[in-house]
Amino acid sequence: MTDSLPADSLPAEDAARELAELCMRTMLGADAASASLGIRALWAAPGRAEMAMTVTPAMLNGHLIGHGGMVFTLADTAFAVACNSYNRTTVATGCDIDFLAQVRAGDELRAVAVERYRRGRGGLYDVTVRRADGEVVAEMRGRCREIQGSLVGEPAPR
Amino acid sequence: MTDSLPADSLPAEDAARELAELCMRTMLGADAASASLGIRALWAAPGRAEMAMTVTPAMLNGHLIGHGGMVFTLADTAFAVACNSYNRTTVATGCDIDFLAQVRAGDELRAVAVERYRRGRGGLYDVTVRRADGEVVAEMRGRCREIQGSLVGEPAPR
Amino acid sequence: MTDSLPADSLPAEDAARELAELCMRTMLGADAASASLGIRALWAAPGRAEMAMTVTPAMLNGHLIGHGGMVFTLADTAFAVACNSYNRTTVATGCDIDFLAQVRAGDELRAVAVERYRRGRGGLYDVTVRRADGEVVAEMRGRCREIQGSLVGEPAPR
Amino acid sequence: MTDSLPADSLPAEDAARELAELCMRTMLGADAASASLGIRALWAAPGRAEMAMTVTPAMLNGHLIGHGGMVFTLADTAFAVACNSYNRTTVATGCDIDFLAQVRAGDELRAVAVERYRRGRGGLYDVTVRRADGEVVAEMRGRCREIQGSLVGEPAPR
Repeated sequence: MTDSLPADSLPAEDAARELAELCMRTMLGADAASASLGIRALWAAPGRAEMAMTVTPAMLNGHLIGHGGMVFTLADTAFAVACNSYNRTTVATGCDIDFLAQVRAGDELRAVAVERYRRGRGGLYDVTVRRADGEVVAEMRGRCREIQGSLVGEPAPR
Repeated sequence: MTDSLPADSLPAEDAARELAELCMRTMLGADAASASLGIRALWAAPGRAEMAMTVTPAMLNGHLIGHGGMVFTLADTAFAVACNSYNRTTVATGCDIDFLAQVRAGDELRAVAVERYRRGRGGLYDVTVRRADGEVVAEMRGRCREIQGSLVGEPAPR
Repeated sequence: MTDSLPADSLPAEDAARELAELCMRTMLGADAASASLGIRALWAAPGRAEMAMTVTPAMLNGHLIGHGGMVFTLADTAFAVACNSYNRTTVATGCDIDFLAQVRAGDELRAVAVERYRRGRGGLYDVTVRRADGEVVAEMRGRCREIQGSLVGEPAPR
Repeated sequence: MTDSLPADSLPAEDAARELAELCMRTMLGADAASASLGIRALWAAPGRAEMAMTVTPAMLNGHLIGHGGMVFTLADTAFAVACNSYNRTTVATGCDIDFLAQVRAGDELRAVAVERYRRGRGGLYDVTVRRADGEVVAEMRGRCREIQGSLVGEPAPR
């Protein structure tokens, strides 16, 4: 995403993607919770994002499988980056998650968030969490709402 | 829950509560994830449980408010204890959560899980998360399914 | 709910219940969809309502069991009456429903809606649908939002 | 989907689509509830289906907009056809729906159901409901479970 051209001479699509990446770095740079779980940002684009996380022994629950809250947190972080990718501060209002397969210590997880709907201040995002072998671990749908403010520089036009 | 009488002479209700507490201690004693967040068990009873968590700076997200994943993890842990309170190993299959108020570093949260439905191997549980001032922070509904096995000793009769 | 005293001399609780019943009659009097399914209003109170419906052969699906949409419609109607019980026009923004038992032609269903959360313009309501034998058929949770307007007379104060 | 070749000489993909269409016709031919709302089957394919419905005055609620239950029933019917498209009897266990825009009498609605996940006996399906102008009216996610039986002829192999 680096580019020697000034942002205002980029094609609109590239500029939008650059902004999404900048918002991602800004958000995650200040996100102590996802950092504490070792969540790694892979990329962001308008309305989309992908995150990775390695399941550690500290993420297991009393059944010695990955705690649902840790899988949720990975999915929720990808959702947050995707829905904040337009530089308009947006918060989650709710999420529905289905746990489809168990995860174990050592599993490498990837969460891909994709925008399904965005209109006015509201939006819906789908997040799929997969293990490295491709198995789907969880499917989440998140609802969000824009509030006042922006992530970087002056607020984006609505 | 201590009692000098042998368990088999306790009234049925007390025995069920004692079993729920024992399952809770067994589960949480092995739950590295909830321990890493400082989640504290307050009590368990058949189909019910209450957990507490203090929001730390390490639980904040990029908007500097409590990460939804941390609030979810607290609620999910209370749900797990409540739905495993009969000594029949039970796993979450999905959850719906509504985030109703933001949380800040230093907030003391309580999550109360209550059984709404249990029949055959399936169940539904409602979890309310409140701040110390009584404000409701989140409402979660969890779905679960019994699998093979028990938490302590021999499997409970079905 | 009849009373010879003028409304303004009723205890506040009775007046609130009377208003809820009036909103219910006004809404359902104009609700062609619920009328077409034979949904019957039993009572309303602030944040609560109960509705009844008899499952007819015309409500069965291709598996010859009650169509989930018909059970949902009953639950959704109880939810709508409960969340409009304060004479502030309120619309559903989403619902989560779990189907827990099948229904057959001739089954008498009851749906009870109870307010779980209401603050500002938002609210959450839980609806339980039961057969006459007490078996729970479905559990629904609905989210709603107040919009402009009232159901009867001038808008209620917020 | 008519073809003069015997089914066993069709390419596998065509045979699967033919079976999906046959299951659809069988299900909807016996579905009194969707027929009573005028729901029309457009097509089915493995894991997918599309249905149409015209909003009539009899589908309006007490706010004189389309009753959420009617929109849900359309979406639920598309979901049912999609998840039964393999000739293995499958029932809905739950649905989450977001209502995104109001519908009015005369609106032409289309619901497209798409399989998101299917494994073992469980599955997840996403249904998008649109007006003729393309506006998304509702997004639903349905969960389902295979039970005993088939829709046409002998049970499909698992």
